[in-house]
This record gives sequence, structure tokens and C-alpha cells, in this order.
Amino acid sequence: MSYAAPLKDMLFVIEELADLDAVAALPGFEDATRETARAVLEENARFVEDVVAPLNRQGDVAPPSWKDGVVTTAAGFKAAFKSYGEAGWQGVQHDVEYGGQGLPKLIATPCIEMLNAASLSFALCPLLTDGAIEALMTAGSDAQKKTYLANLISGRWTGTMNLTEPQAGSDLAQVRTRAVPQASGPHAGAYRLFGQKIYITYGEHDMADNIVHLVLARTPDAPEGVKGISLFTVPKVLVAADGSPGARNDVYCASIEHKLGIKASPTAVLLFGEGYFDVDGQAGAIGQLVGEENRGLEYMFVMMNAARFQVGMQGIAIAERAYQQAVSYAKDRVQSRDVAGSSGPVTIIHHPDVRRMLMTMRAQIEAARAIAYVTAAAYDASHRSPDDATRRQNQAFYEYLVPVVKGWSTERSIEVASLGVQVHGGMGFIEETGAAQHYRDARILTIYEGTTAIQANDLVGRKTVRDGGAVAKGIVAQVRRTAAGLASNDADLAAIAKRLTAGADALEAVVDFVVANMKSDVRAVFAGSVPYLELAGIVLGGWQMARAAAIATAKLDAGDGDADFLRAKIATARFFADHLLSRATGIRDGIVEGADAVMALEAGQF
Amino acid sequence: MSYAAPLKDMLFVIEELADLDAVAALPGFEDATRETARAVLEENARFVEDVVAPLNRQGDVAPPSWKDGVVTTAAGFKAAFKSYGEAGWQGVQHDVEYGGQGLPKLIATPCIEMLNAASLSFALCPLLTDGAIEALMTAGSDAQKKTYLANLISGRWTGTMNLTEPQAGSDLAQVRTRAVPQASGPHAGAYRLFGQKIYITYGEHDMADNIVHLVLARTPDAPEGVKGISLFTVPKVLVAADGSPGARNDVYCASIEHKLGIKASPTAVLLFGEGYFDVDGQAGAIGQLVGEENRGLEYMFVMMNAARFQVGMQGIAIAERAYQQAVSYAKDRVQSRDVAGSSGPVTIIHHPDVRRMLMTMRAQIEAARAIAYVTAAAYDASHRSPDDATRRQNQAFYEYLVPVVKGWSTERSIEVASLGVQVHGGMGFIEETGAAQHYRDARILTIYEGTTAIQANDLVGRKTVRDGGAVAKGIVAQVRRTAAGLASNDADLAAIAKRLTAGADALEAVVDFVVANMKSDVRAVFAGSVPYLELAGIVLGGWQMARAAAIATAKLDAGDGDADFLRAKIATARFFADHLLSRATGIRDGIVEGADAVMALEAGQF
Repeated sequence: MSYAAPLKDMLFVIEELADLDAVAALPGFEDATRETARAVLEENARFVEDVVAPLNRQGDVAPPSWKDGVVTTAAGFKAAFKSYGEAGWQGVQHDVEYGGQGLPKLIATPCIEMLNAASLSFALCPLLTDGAIEALMTAGSDAQKKTYLANLISGRWTGTMNLTEPQAGSDLAQVRTRAVPQASGPHAGAYRLFGQKIYITYGEHDMADNIVHLVLARTPDAPEGVKGISLFTVPKVLVAADGSPGARNDVYCASIEHKLGIKASPTAVLLFGEGYFDVDGQAGAIGQLVGEENRGLEYMFVMMNAARFQVGMQGIAIAERAYQQAVSYAKDRVQSRDVAGSSGPVTIIHHPDVRRMLMTMRAQIEAARAIAYVTAAAYDASHRSPDDATRRQNQAFYEYLVPVVKGWSTERSIEVASLGVQVHGGMGFIEETGAAQHYRDARILTIYEGTTAIQANDLVGRKTVRDGGAVAKGIVAQVRRTAAGLASNDADLAAIAKRLTAGADALEAVVDFVVANMKSDVRAVFAGSVPYLELAGIVLGGWQMARAAAIATAKLDAGDGDADFLRAKIATARFFADHLLSRATGIRDGIVEGADAVMALEAGQF
Repeated sequence: MSYAAPLKDMLFVIEELADLDAVAALPGFEDATRETARAVLEENARFVEDVVAPLNRQGDVAPPSWKDGVVTTAAGFKAAFKSYGEAGWQGVQHDVEYGGQGLPKLIATPCIEMLNAASLSFALCPLLTDGAIEALMTAGSDAQKKTYLANLISGRWTGTMNLTEPQAGSDLAQVRTRAVPQASGPHAGAYRLFGQKIYITYGEHDMADNIVHLVLARTPDAPEGVKGISLFTVPKVLVAADGSPGARNDVYCASIEHKLGIKASPTAVLLFGEGYFDVDGQAGAIGQLVGEENRGLEYMFVMMNAARFQVGMQGIAIAERAYQQAVSYAKDRVQSRDVAGSSGPVTIIHHPDVRRMLMTMRAQIEAARAIAYVTAAAYDASHRSPDDATRRQNQAFYEYLVPVVKGWSTERSIEVASLGVQVHGGMGFIEETGAAQHYRDARILTIYEGTTAIQANDLVGRKTVRDGGAVAKGIVAQVRRTAAGLASNDADLAAIAKRLTAGADALEAVVDFVVANMKSDVRAVFAGSVPYLELAGIVLGGWQMARAAAIATAKLDAGDGDADFLRAKIATARFFADHLLSRATGIRDGIVEGADAVMALEAGQF
């Protein structure tokens, strides 16, 4: 089953909801016009549809193999990644100084969505590379930037994030990998690293000339916990001052995991400093400190926020792919008569429950996409606005939304992929159909780059309690303004306004509950953290769908735009309001009135 | 990860909620005392824990293979099935006349749950065999009963249900397999069958001496549609009048499917009458008509109701297995400090969101189990009560509940298995952990034996509209009586009563909506059919949990029973009320106020 980029919806969201014109008015983004956006998206769509999408299934069937530390990626991946780099796609949002295109995140984001929809497994390599680029841009020295950035942005090299160790997953305070400074010898000023990292996506592969590992480790005198973690670059192949390749570094891929999904992306166990490769006569992987000692987690957070946003896009992408496949099947499969009567069996898209499933998929995808693109636009404004207050305001909006984009979009993607299987009936359970792959692939998204609980803790702690709920309530106020502005003489908009207001009430009550109880009953607050994130996703998704419906109504009234698309947008917004926003009050009740029940059992009673 | 049967909860539900004593008072069930139930359950638990549970993972890793029409099942399955039969487990609920134990369904049901928790793939073979036994008991001739029942009940032979064809899945009206009566020759009086059946669970295997296929097919002059379908027995090996094995019948396994889950159960494509095996010199599988011509679907429905109930049990079983594995991991894995402060990292069961996930799993499992066992008791009363009105009342209750047991338990099982993966974090995505297998295995349960939409259509049509909502409203009245009887001076019971009353209101409103609109707006009714089923599951689950909480409170007050278990039951009931029942009103809103949005788009707009 092929993939067709949903360009119409993407452009509507970029232009109408995320206000591309305003982004193009920011200093440095003068070229990011509607024409540019359309051209970039169309070109990207052609590339991912033709080159990447066909790899998705074959990479699942014949995933990468490991032998003696060497990983051979799935057929076609190496060539596709070469084309990807040569066409400049790795550089869309990166600095022109290092060969990037310097476009806003608002334009890069749909490109990321498309690549992931074409193949989550393939897209992970650029995703991690983006993270490495962000980290080096933030904290790298000029020499590090010079050595790595152009090669990463061109796609000649790739990047990884080396965080997790067996005892250090969600809790990075437990990182034990050691970095020993070299006082003398050929690597004076550098470090030798020793330790084991697990779950390293594209930690070893054959798709690029070099792999730049960004590794969290502790220097000998580092304090315990998260304040003693530093960040290092550890290239797979050492790089001489003139940029030429040197010796193989002492980082060895001990195995790759046998996973439920995203099978085509190699997930490596990496051993640093085990002496598999001697560098100048001794064990220890040569690494360079990035930024200052003991500030590694801070830099990694820059990278992780970017990566979390992108994993949120993965959720939207896989959901879109699953949706397209389900729609295609539903339009093709003939089974049973219409419930309202028909002369013979009809295609199943005529059956109300199939329709309900497709609408549930569609509504959540469109809502999640709208939230994400609006968040991307806030990121652009937070970096480029000439006005300090505007930058800060957008930064706060962006930071509040990142855990929602990551947590909510990915949770929804599992549901959407599961509905995709369901629409197929028995065929969905047969691997050859492909629907099951999406269900398997999506399942990682709520786990890596911080589980949903980690996102929710971030939403509760750093994003809500720290400012006493100010940003959260500012957003609720915006939601209310949208609800109040919906024309009461339009049946759809009035119905949406009613649900959106109830949603805003629910979200505000939860924000108040969180802020009020954080000190007095922290367990009660965290007992509701994931439901809070779910509620935020529903209400903010409903908000963006309401904005979309209002704009679509106005455009229809003005005879402007694609009437069929606009009417579908209104109907989808209405569905979202009636079937998803309508659940907001129940979620509020569980959080505000149900916290005690979560912790009522003793651990021993389970 | 091993499995330990939750005997304490099973016995509580059997004795306190499903009223085993009342079942034991029914004619013919005099032996079904508490002592018998406990002994049978304990013995069954030992068997499945020791013999079957260890096969679950290895059957997934090394599933059955197909070669030239012969299927070799996974290692250990054949021996385990032999033990299963010899120990008499296939016969628990079947007629003593044919070698069964003649125990009530209320006692057989926990045994079925345990077997499925040990291995869904393994349990499917007995499940289908049970279906074949039911069908033959219902409609088989004396000769057919004599030929088949003792062999099926002893586990020497197994049974299958041959319904689906490529064009006939949910819609059996499209069945095309032909059954041609033999007027003369060695098979005079029998039929020769020709056609292709797909998705035949255990349609071919090496675990028994013979396989009795129950096949839907059309005789030459049969009317079109569902009224022209007859049911046939087609044994893999023909059986002589004296019971001795004869020629290989002309049914050939053309392939087995490559599936997402339940990999150890072979899913066959069967070809009837293709001449792979000539029987007496010509092609055509020899079959015997079961019951009367053209009444096949009616008989099959008996079998399907039994099978649907059992698939509901599969949902509860896999959910329980996933829950046990998650609890075990959560008690073992150390990561991050307690949110309320701790000197070091703690086991993750101390983290509120892990607790929320475990409670969500547990509460739904306990509620689904309670609904199912109460339904089983109604089945027993519907068959054995000496009072006609009581029989009819229980039959109506049973029939209303079957689609809820099947649809709701299985939908929940997917969520529970997914939460099980989530509790494991990154480990959950690695196949070796085993959590991912439950997530894959559970995914079939909402599809086979009628998708959730088919269950919901049954709930709407045959079970609600046909009697004008009388049975549904009778059940709602019972729910209200339970809510009214909960002590208002007990904080937990009062909170549960509030949610249960709101749930009853929501369910009643939906029943009214369904009955009122079936004629005027059939699409609107079916647009809400699956949400109606979801709501029924939540409200009836909440009802049983409320009953359980009331009983547990009374027992605690009386100083009777296991205090720790009873307190946990109350806490779990409270969780169910606050976090699941609290969503009832939102679901109602979507059904009653949101039907138009489901069908608003044209098919072409997708």
C-alpha cells in the first residue's frame, strides 16, 4: 500500500492555522513564502513517495542483520539515504552556514511528517541526526561545528543519542559510563570513554561514512546524579584536523535488538572502551567534551526537546499512513448490505461503524497535525521574533506544547493504527496486508524519547507548576476566546463551541487542581498526570479544529478555496467535538475526584 | 514469565457475584458445590500452569510449519493436548452421556479463562472443539452424536468451524461452497462438498487422530442469502459405521497464514473437493448434513454464541496474563526516586503513573471477569431452572450479555496488553520480554467470531430493538437497585453509587435513543452501536464491581473472609467508578448528540 502526502491539509494548516505569512515576516525567513512552502512540500512528497515509501514493508520483512559488530541495513536503505542527503533534505531547517536550507521549522515539520509516514524506520536516522546537529549548534565548539556539522547536514555522516544504560532508562541520574581525560599522548585534551549503552537507534549501520555518537558520561570527579553528567562526541571513525578519516574508534556494536516493530532501524547495544578497536595502542573510545563539564543533561535536553517534537510527528505520520491504508481498503472491500437497505453488498465504507472508525482516525490525525504545526510556528517566532516579549511568549507556548505533541500524538497513533487493523477485519491480522506493521511500529512511540508518563511529568512540573499555571491558563483563555468567537447561528460551530467551552472548563479545573495540590499531595497530582496530558491533547486539538472550522466556514461564505475540502474540515471538526471533546469532563472527574483510588492499594496487594 | 491462576478472585466472583450455591441448587448440578468448584479450579490451575503456560512463548518463536498440506504444530503442543484430553479437561461442561463431567458453565468458565491465559494459541483448539460439540448436541442426529461426541469430548479428535470464504467474512450470505447430494454409490445419502474456506483455526494439525470440520455450504437448490445455508460434518478422515477410520477425505490444507499474533495456532486455507484426495475414485469431500437443510446458520449461531462467549474469556485471560507480567516487572524494576521523596531509586510500582496503569488493567479485568461469570451462571439457569419464567429471564439476560462479554472484554484486552507493554518501557518493545506477544496475540480478539461492530449490531438489533429495549431496561433497573442499596455513610460506596447512577442514566438514555431511532434513522443508531457496547461494558462492569464492593464491605464488617483481598476489591471498585464509569456520560453524548457527524462526509471525501 503506497502513501500519498496529505498536502492539501498540510498547506491549510500551515497557512491558515499556523500563519505561515507571519513566520515569513520574521527576520531571516523572508524566503519562506507560501510559494516556497508549496514547492518544498511538493518536492518532498515526490521524494518520499517514490524513494522511501516502497522500502517500508521490505525493511520489516528483511530487517538489518548483525555480524561481528557490523550491521548491514535493509535492502535499499543505503541508496535511499544517499539520495536523501544529496537532495538536501537533511538540511531543510538547518543553518545555511553549514549547508542547510535555513527554512523555518514550520516548513521542515511537514517534511518530517512525510518522511516518517513513508517509513518510520528509515526516518529515524535523519531524526537522530537532527538531534546531534541541534546539540552541536547549541553547545559545540567552533572546531566541533566545523568538523561535524557540514557532514551531518549533507547526510554524509549520521548522528546518534547515547543516553540509556541498562540501569538508566527514564532515570538518567544512574548513568555510569566513564569519561577519563587524557593528559598526554596523541589524544591529550580528549577523553577515553568506557561503558555500555543500550537502545541506540542507528547506533551502527552501513548507510554513511561515519557515525557521530553524542554520549552522556561521567568524568572522574563528577558529582553524583544528573548534575555530574557531561556530553561527548564519539565518532565511529576518528577525524583528523583536516577532516580526513583516521582510525576506527573503540566503540563496538555488540548486538542489535529483536523488536516488535520499526524492525528496519537497527537498535544497537554499544560497548565503549572494551578494546575491540585499539586506538593508539590502548582501549577506550576517544571522545571530545561538548560545552562544559557536568552540563551534559542540559544540552541533551535541547536535543531531546527537538527529538520529542519529532517523535510526536512520527505519531501523526504513522497514523496518517494507517488511515490511508484503511480508507483504501474500506473503499475497495465489498461486504454486507447497507444498514438502510441496498440491492446487494456494498463497499464497507458505507457501514456506519467503519465510518465511525475512519472519522475517529481522521479527526485525531488532523487535530494532532494542527497542534504540532502551530507549535512549530511558535518555535520559529521564539527564535526569530525581533520582540523580546513575543519571543518569550512563544517559547513558553512551545515548551508547554512539546510534551503534548509528543505524548498525545503518539498515544493516539497506537489507537489509530489499531483501528486501521480493525477496519481490515481478518485481513488486518495477516502480516502481508501491512496494517499490522503500523500497529507494531507505532507501539514504540509512547516509549522512546521519554515515555508518556515522562512527558506528563514534564507537563505537570516544568510546564505547569513552575509558573503557577500561568502559561496553561493563558492557553485556556485563548481557547475560550476561540469558543466565544464561533458564530452561534451556525449549527456546527455552535455545537463545537459548546463542547469546546466544556473542554476549557475541564482543563482549567485540572490546572487548578495540579497547582493547588503539588505541595500538599504530590502523589495525587502525578496520579493524574497522564490523564492531564490526555485532556490537554483533546482540548487543544479541539481548539485547533474549532479554529479550522471557523476559518473554513468563513472561506465557504466568501466562496474562497476548495469547497469540498472545507466542508470536510468542518464535518471533521464537528466529529472531534462530539466524540472526543465530549469526553473531557469525564477525564477531569477522574483526575480531580479520583486520585486517591490510584494509590489506594499497597504494592503488596498487586 | 509464568502464569499463576487468580483463584482467589475467581472463587470470589463465582461464589459471591454469580451465586454458585444457586447454580448448585439447579436440577442436575447437585454436585457443583463450593468444594467441587474449588477442587476443579485448583486442579485446572496446576495443569495449565505446569503443562500449558510454558508453551506460550516457544510456540510464538517457533510456530507451526506447513509442507505439502501437512501442518506440524509447535514443539510440545501435541503432548500437552494429549494430556489435556486424558485429564478430562475438554469435557468439563459437556454431557456425562458422552464422557463429559457435566459441570455447569459457571465452573467451566474459569477453567477456560485459565487455559487461555496459559496460551491463547493452545486454547483455540479446545475452544473450536467445544463449538463443534455444541453444534452437534443442538442439531446432530443420534448417529452423528454417537460417531463424534465421545471422540471430541475425550480430546482424541478436534473440531473446527468452517464459515469464512474470501468474499464471505462478516457477511455469511455470500457463502458459495457447494454441497452436492449423492443419490447413489458408496456415499449415497451423503454430500460431496466443493469450495474454499479461509481463516480456519486449527483447520489442519497433527495433535489429534481426526479433525471434524463443521462446514457451511449450499445445496444445489438452496435459496440465495442466509436462508440457503446448510451445515455439514466433514471429517478429515472418514469414519466407518463401527467407528473405525476410513479413507482420507478430500479436504486439503493449501497454506497457513503468517499472522501478527497467536502464531502457534495454525490458521488454514482449506480446499474442499479439489481432488487432492480421491474418495472412492472421485473428487469431492464427503459430508453429512447436520439437522435440516437451509437451517445451517441457525445451528451455527448456537455454536457461535458459545464461541463468542469463549472469545470474551480469551480477552479476560490475555489481559490477566499481561497484567501479571506487568506487576512482576513493576515490582522488580528499580528506576527513579519516589515523587514524594526517597533516599534512592525505588521499584517502579511506587510511581503514581505505573500504579494508574496497573489499576486500569486490574479494574477492567476484574469487572470483565465478573460480567462473564455472572453471564455463565445465567446460562446455567436458562438451561436447568425448573421454572419456565426463570429460564426465559436468564436466557434473555445471557443473550444480552454475550455481545458485551465478547465485544467489551476483547476491546479492553487490547488496551490492557498495550498498557502491559508500556509498564515495561523500552523492555516492552523487545520481543524476548514477552509483553509484546500479548499485545500481538490480543489483537485478533476483536476481529474473529464477529468483529466488535458485529457484536454491537447484535446488541442493537436482536438484543435491544427486538423487544423494544425491555431486557436492556430491566438490566438498567437492576443496576439502579444496586446503586440505591449502597450504604451512603460509607465514602467508597457512596462515591461508587454516584458514578453508577450516572452510568445507569447514560445507558438508559442510549437504549431509549436506539429504540426510538431504529426506524426513523437507522444509520444514526448504528453509528453509535460500538460506543453503545462500550457504554454497556462500562456500566455493567461498574455494576458488578459495585456489587462486589458492597459484599466486600459487609464481609469486612462481619470479620469474614480475607481482609486484604476484600479491601483491595473495594479499592479496585472505587478506581473503576472514578476512572472508567466517570466516562459514561461523555460516551452517551457522543451517541445521542453526535450521530450526524459520523456520516457527514461523502465516501469520496475520505
